[in-house]
This record gives sequence, structure tokens and C-alpha cells, in this order.
Amino acid sequence: MSTSKSGTLYGVGVGPGDPDLLTLKAARLISSAKVIAYPSPEGGESFARSIVQAHITDGITEISMDVPMRVERFAAQSVYDTSANTIAEHLRAGEDVVVLCEGDPFFYGSFMYLHNRLSLEFEVEIVSGVSSLVACAGRVAQPLAGRNDVLTILPGPMSDEELEQRFALGGSFVIIKVGRHMSRIRALIEKHGLLANAAYVERATLGEEKRMPLADVDESCVPYFFDDPDL
Amino acid sequence: MSTSKSGTLYGVGVGPGDPDLLTLKAARLISSAKVIAYPSPEGGESFARSIVQAHITDGITEISMDVPMRVERFAAQSVYDTSANTIAEHLRAGEDVVVLCEGDPFFYGSFMYLHNRLSLEFEVEIVSGVSSLVACAGRVAQPLAGRNDVLTILPGPMSDEELEQRFALGGSFVIIKVGRHMSRIRALIEKHGLLANAAYVERATLGEEKRMPLADVDESCVPYFFDDPDL
Repeated sequence: MSTSKSGTLYGVGVGPGDPDLLTLKAARLISSAKVIAYPSPEGGESFARSIVQAHITDGITEISMDVPMRVERFAAQSVYDTSANTIAEHLRAGEDVVVLCEGDPFFYGSFMYLHNRLSLEFEVEIVSGVSSLVACAGRVAQPLAGRNDVLTILPGPMSDEELEQRFALGGSFVIIKVGRHMSRIRALIEKHGLLANAAYVERATLGEEKRMPLADVDESCVPYFFDDPDL
Repeated sequence: MSTSKSGTLYGVGVGPGDPDLLTLKAARLISSAKVIAYPSPEGGESFARSIVQAHITDGITEISMDVPMRVERFAAQSVYDTSANTIAEHLRAGEDVVVLCEGDPFFYGSFMYLHNRLSLEFEVEIVSGVSSLVACAGRVAQPLAGRNDVLTILPGPMSDEELEQRFALGGSFVIIKVGRHMSRIRALIEKHGLLANAAYVERATLGEEKRMPLADVDESCVPYFFDDPDL
């Protein structure tokens, strides 16, 4: 639907945190970008931007999406409305816009909210990134899945019943968005005999990374706040 | 367990196929490597090597792991025995060895077989890569999962009963290793009302990529041969 005069919207995965896990394509797009956008939890520092800051040229236009944390989903959606409008103005003016996405743009990220609002009118290109999923596995030196294993990714806020249904079917599991659900989830993992093989990873690939057997986690250490309104 | 004299084994993800989706870290490790190793299906051209060939220095030692296709698992395992022995000799001599892994090293890859054989004696570092999982989602512009969705990755060779159990629980699904199971899997997807949203992707991010609604796939087009002995 885009006209030849409109810019392209790039959804660029910046990987899990280590700036060295940026792809060659992402590095090139970011360093030549004139307009970038990124989520900034409650207007604080943007994690996605911090990963790639060495590649950002001085003086370019930066659009900070101030995503509220731990509030009604409604409020977050209005931020994406406003941000999509701002981004659309640049695209209509023929400028490309590079949106920085933690991990991969389409793996539990917020880029889908911009994509939903802009992909009918503008050309979109996704630049896939290293997801936190594989980064965590790498850091604990534990394969996620192999051969004909099933791999299930479960968000922590699910109910006990839903989690247990999945555990009962077997395979490998990754639980994301653990936060304040930690003690409940650990109890369920133990109940299903999975504790001995379970690892905990926090801030994978970053300097402040924590990783340990799940059985050793001190619950007071688990971060309760994430930049995700669905927690 | 490693001595100060031994080299490090690097398991390096090279991404789904587009050489531009290599990470900065992988590119640097490969271009400075003195010894690299990679799987070569039945002694043919290595896909992993072809992705990164621009970064390989002339005259270095290359260890080709000639993985047999579609044979008894036993035969493939003996290839990993032999390869692990060759790699171990280099590591003991104090040389680092960079193993090229399609996608990510720990997401359904064969690197786990080398890791199992070598990680007790040698230092191993995993360099995570862009998995085919996220690359396929990017290419069809369809988010894999968002908010509190469950995402389940299912290998095509699973039985009808096992696949249907998973479909019945809901969420998003990725089916890998489809190959000769295509018509059976498509019928199950249709039976569970999932066909309208299902996309098919082959050779994601490569020049010969194919992508289309699953409903439009001509079964004669689906590749029957993969470099994976578990098909």
C-alpha cells in the first residue's frame, strides 16, 4: 500500500543485551538511520537503545515511546497510538524509521503493536534478532531442545491449572515473565519433578547477569518490575 | 576442568541463512579463527559454512563433519564421536575451535552432540544466533507470540495424537521438520480450525526463500530432504 515517496518502517531486533550480539544488518541500519524509535519504560532509560548506543549517530531524530509499567493495558495502548502517529508522519515525509526492539521484534515484543497500526499503510521490514530464549540457553550451557523434543514457552502469569496441563504433556519448557510469580512457579516445577534440571537466568549476556540452578534462587533477588504491561 | 593450555570450544550460531544476520561477535570470531568445524550433509556443501564464507580466512584448518542423512541415528552419532576426537586434539594443543551452527547452537541443532562429548574436558562458549524460528516469523510479518500467549514448537514427525493434544490446548504453534509429514500435518491443522492463520516458510531469509499461506502450499514443492537424522 505504500507509495514510492513513503519511507520504510524497520523493526530491528537488537538481541538480548550484549552489544556484540547485534546482527551485521542491524548495526548497519542503526548507524545509517536518520530517525529511530524505542520503548522507554516510564520515560526512563531505554534498554534497547542502551544496547546499540555505540552505533547511533549524533543529531538524529529519536522517538522515545514512554511505555507505562504495571498499569492497565489501556494506557500502554494509547502510548502506541501516539507513537505510531509520530512515526507515520516521518514515513509519510519519505523518511525511514528504525524501531529498536529488545531481542527479536516478533518474539513477545511490543513491536507488534506498532506493526498492527502501521503495516497496512507502509512498507515494513523485520530484521530478526537473537531472542532472549536462545541467549538464556547459551548462558547456562543447556540445549533448549533437540531431536524431536517439544519446546513450550509459557508466560509466568498463567494460572496453576494451565501451567500444570502443559507440564503434564512433557517436553522442554521455558517460562518467561516470571517476576512476582516465582515462588508459585517454582513450587509447580518441583511438584512435576522438573526442578533438578531447571535453571534460572536473569539479564542474560549482560554484565549484571545472574544464572543458577532454579533450586538455588533466593526469591528476594528476583526482579519484580519489567517493562511489560502484561505482567 | 580445562587447563590453562587448552583452547576454547566456541559454538557459534550463524543465523538462518542471510549472511547479514550474523552477529558482530560471530563475524569477529570466525574471521580470526585458526580452526573451524561445521556439519556437511553427506559430505556435500555445508550450509553453515556457506552463510559465513566471506568471513573465513584462507589457509585455516577446516573440519568437515560429514553427517549422514536419513539413516539410523547410530551412524550420525559415530560421526560426532570422530569429529569430537579431532576437535579435542586441536583444543588440547591449545588452539581454539569455532564450530559453525545453523541458526542458534542450542535450538534443535547438532552442536549439542559435540557439547555432550567435550564440555567436561574443555571450556565451551556459546555465541547465540538468530534462530530460524524468529526468522520465519519476520519473513511472513506475523508475530510468533505476544502478551501472555503460549508458544509451542512441535516437530513434524510427532504422532497425530500427540500433535492434536497440543493443538487442543491452544496458543501459537510452530511446526518444524515438516518434510514428508506435510499433508498429514496440514490436515490436522485444518481439523483444528488453524489453517486460515497458518503460514509456510522454506529457506527463510535466503534468495530461494518460499513463503505463502499454508493453504496454498503445493505439496510437490516441499523439500523432503534435510540434514537431520531425526526426520
